[in-house]
Parts: sequence; structure tokens; C-alpha cells
Amino acid sequence: MARAIQVIGIEGLPEVRPGDDLVALLLDALAAEGLALQEGDIVVLTQKIVSKAEGRLIALAEVEPSMFARTVAEQTGRDPRLTEVILREARRIVRMDRQVLLVETRQGLVCANAGVDRSNVGEGRVALLPQDPDASARAIREEIKRRTGIQVAVLITDTFGRPWREGLTEVAVGVAGLAPLKDHRGHRDRFGVPLQATLVAVADELACAAGLVMEKLAGIPAAIIRGYAYEPQEGTAAALVRPPERDLFR
Amino acid sequence: MARAIQVIGIEGLPEVRPGDDLVALLLDALAAEGLALQEGDIVVLTQKIVSKAEGRLIALAEVEPSMFARTVAEQTGRDPRLTEVILREARRIVRMDRQVLLVETRQGLVCANAGVDRSNVGEGRVALLPQDPDASARAIREEIKRRTGIQVAVLITDTFGRPWREGLTEVAVGVAGLAPLKDHRGHRDRFGVPLQATLVAVADELACAAGLVMEKLAGIPAAIIRGYAYEPQEGTAAALVRPPERDLFR
Repeated sequence: MARAIQVIGIEGLPEVRPGDDLVALLLDALAAEGLALQEGDIVVLTQKIVSKAEGRLIALAEVEPSMFARTVAEQTGRDPRLTEVILREARRIVRMDRQVLLVETRQGLVCANAGVDRSNVGEGRVALLPQDPDASARAIREEIKRRTGIQVAVLITDTFGRPWREGLTEVAVGVAGLAPLKDHRGHRDRFGVPLQATLVAVADELACAAGLVMEKLAGIPAAIIRGYAYEPQEGTAAALVRPPERDLFR
Repeated sequence: MARAIQVIGIEGLPEVRPGDDLVALLLDALAAEGLALQEGDIVVLTQKIVSKAEGRLIALAEVEPSMFARTVAEQTGRDPRLTEVILREARRIVRMDRQVLLVETRQGLVCANAGVDRSNVGEGRVALLPQDPDASARAIREEIKRRTGIQVAVLITDTFGRPWREGLTEVAVGVAGLAPLKDHRGHRDRFGVPLQATLVAVADELACAAGLVMEKLAGIPAAIIRGYAYEPQEGTAAALVRPPERDLFR
């Protein structure tokens, strides 16, 4: 049983509020479960709790939709104020349709609704993505190291759709402490044939693994992945975004 | 530690050959590691070993490329015989470019090169996807039940790229015994707000989790996921494919 990975859901986190000390809440929740972080663990947090702690919440009642937001709202079947918030977070509309509003966000991500989301933030409010999710991940990683002495990697995840396939999966929108991509190119397979096109999006696979335990309905917004031998590196989720000039679908 | 999932790589599988009894090889490898299957385990196999066992291998030297295959090969920088094999597996070209040949396969999947792959099959040969990966998964599941009395779910995975994001991730191309999608729509969040757009591609997240231990270079082509509470169902990977009429990118 040389290669076994554990994915552990962190239960018992309280409702996170703007200004909360997320690392303190996390360490308390772990302690209450009798769990302690270990060197090399990967701590995975949903974007939602990071955004809440950072105060990235907007009350829709206070939003004044622009003329364009009203027009887009009508075509995509959305609330005009929500649409205004989405457009403020976007730097480009990639595709819009009767139900879809797919944009490139200020962070460079391509996703529906610029990652603006109504769930688990209370009626009439929406959560935005963290301003700089890589910086958020780095700060959490450093704070964990400062308080516990333990070096972990940190991923911040969000739930994205994708073309051609049904259903959403988790992706890494913030990375600190691990190489987000693993490059097999140039290596040879067991028959000596060079491997092609084998750049693996490790951070997204880790995000999906964590997604299996981070249940939206059960209120589990964080997980630990233990036993995965990653390549330590400063890391950035920006490396997971394909540059527009090499993207056939933008 | 209520919610912990284990992802266990199955080591020690021999090189799989056409006609091999994959379930026997799998059970032997598990026994050699001192592992036994448990009720509810998810057995994950890479497409490659399933294809090999099913004899879905082609020697390129025996392929005569058509005129169109030669033309496409030239434009996409590919071997004309490989291109011929890809086109035979395809029912539609979704996108072609200087390096990319993205097609819809006969199984309905949208992926590069119709899933035709040169790695780990020996020089001058390529592996095709299983003819009907759901049927392959079902047969493996039934055979495991027959031999061990244990009810597992089975996933067959392949490694696909995706628009907008760098790197490949595992996806489920064959499913037996679990619901590939989990539907949260209609449920309400902790604030009572209805959850929207939350159809989760559980089978793909499981495939990614398994991908973390199924290392191409280390020759680990199978894994067990243990402790994930899935919804038992006949299941099919076809449900993970978005119908063309609802797909903005086809």
C-alpha cells in the first residue's frame, strides 16, 4: 500500500464572517476533531469561506445596474443587479446566451458569472472571488506556518462548469506551496516511447479530490489532502490558465 | 474524522495483453499487496489497460491513410497513419488547428485525437478507446461480484485536456454502479436560498482523485477509492457528455 492518499473533510467550521481569522477557525475546527496538521499536508479551502473572511460580499440592494447590465440581464435571464456585479468583476465576455454568461474575470479565469455566487451567503447578497486568490493562499500558508511551525501547501477552489461535459467540478483558483502542473514531457514510457502532451493539472485534480468531501449542503468548506507527494514550489493558480493566444475557445 | 476518503494506487499489475483476464490480474495484484476489496469500494482503471485487454491496439504499419487523412495530417502536424486511425474513431471534427485535432468520438466523447494514444503500448502501435467503455465497466463490475461476492462501482478513466485551462485531468469515460452526477438543484443552502446550477460531476471528480495515484511513469494503471458515499445506480458515462444541442462550444 505504498501510494495511498487521504482526503479528510474538515467539519465544524462556524459560519465565516468578514474580518474573521480563517486560520484560527481552521485550527480550532481541526483540534475539535482531534486532528493535527502534518508536514506536507495540502489544506484546501473553498473560495467561499476565503471570500467571506476577506469581506468580498455585496448586498444586491445597494447595486445600481448600468444600461448595459440591464441589457445583458434581459438576454441572459438574470437579475440586473447581479449582472452589474458580474460585469464589474469581468474584463471580457467570452460567451453569452439565453442562460449562460461566461466571462474572463479580472483574475484571468474563464468561468460562468465571474465566480459571483449567491449560495451560502444569505438572501440578497452575493460573494465575489477573492481579489487575488494566489495571494490569499500564500497568506494562509504563511500564517499556518507561523502558528504551528508546519509547512503545508494551500489550495483555494471554486466550482466551474466546462464545455462538452455535464456537471461542475472543482478547480484551483489559488495555489501556494506546490507546483500546479506536473510535466511528463520528455520522459519516456515503459517501452521507451517519449510521452507526449502529458502536462497534468495536479492542482485541479487535487481540487476535485477535495471536492468529494467538501459538500455544499453539509457545510464542509475545507479539507486536508494527506500523503500526496507534490513538488514543493511557490506555485500559482495563474499557471493553470491557458494564455488567450494559445486558446482555441476564447 | 467523519468524512475521510482513501485513494489507493494498485501497484504490481503486469503488462496487460490482448485477451488477458483483467479482473484476475487486478485481484492478484491486490492480494500481493495484502489488500482486499470492500463493499462500496470504487475500482478505477485507466482506459489503457482496459483497451489492451480488449485488444483495441493497432499497428500503424498496417494502416493505409486516406487522402483526407493525409490532408488533415499535414495541417495538424501528425503522422498520416495515426491521423487515419483517429478519423476512423471519430464521427465529427470539432476543431482542428496547427497542432490540435479535437473530435467527437463514436462514443460521443469530445477529446483530442479521439482518445487514440501511443504511450505505453510499444513502438509503432496505438491504443484506441474501448468500443463501449460503459459496457466494459459493467462487465468488470459483474465479474468482480461473481468472483469475490463484493459489490463495487467501476470507473474507466482517460486523460483529457480542456479549454481555457492548462494541463490534462482525468475524466470518467466508463461508469458502472454509481450515479455519475449529483444533483443539488432544488435543495436550499444554510440560509434557505435555493442552490442553482449545482449538478456535480462526481464521476469526473473521482477520476481526478484516482489520477493522483495512477502515475503514467510509475506504471500504476488502477486505483481503489474507499470511503466515498456514492449513490448506487447502474450509471453511465454517457450522462457526463453534454448533448450537442445544449453545448455552446461544439
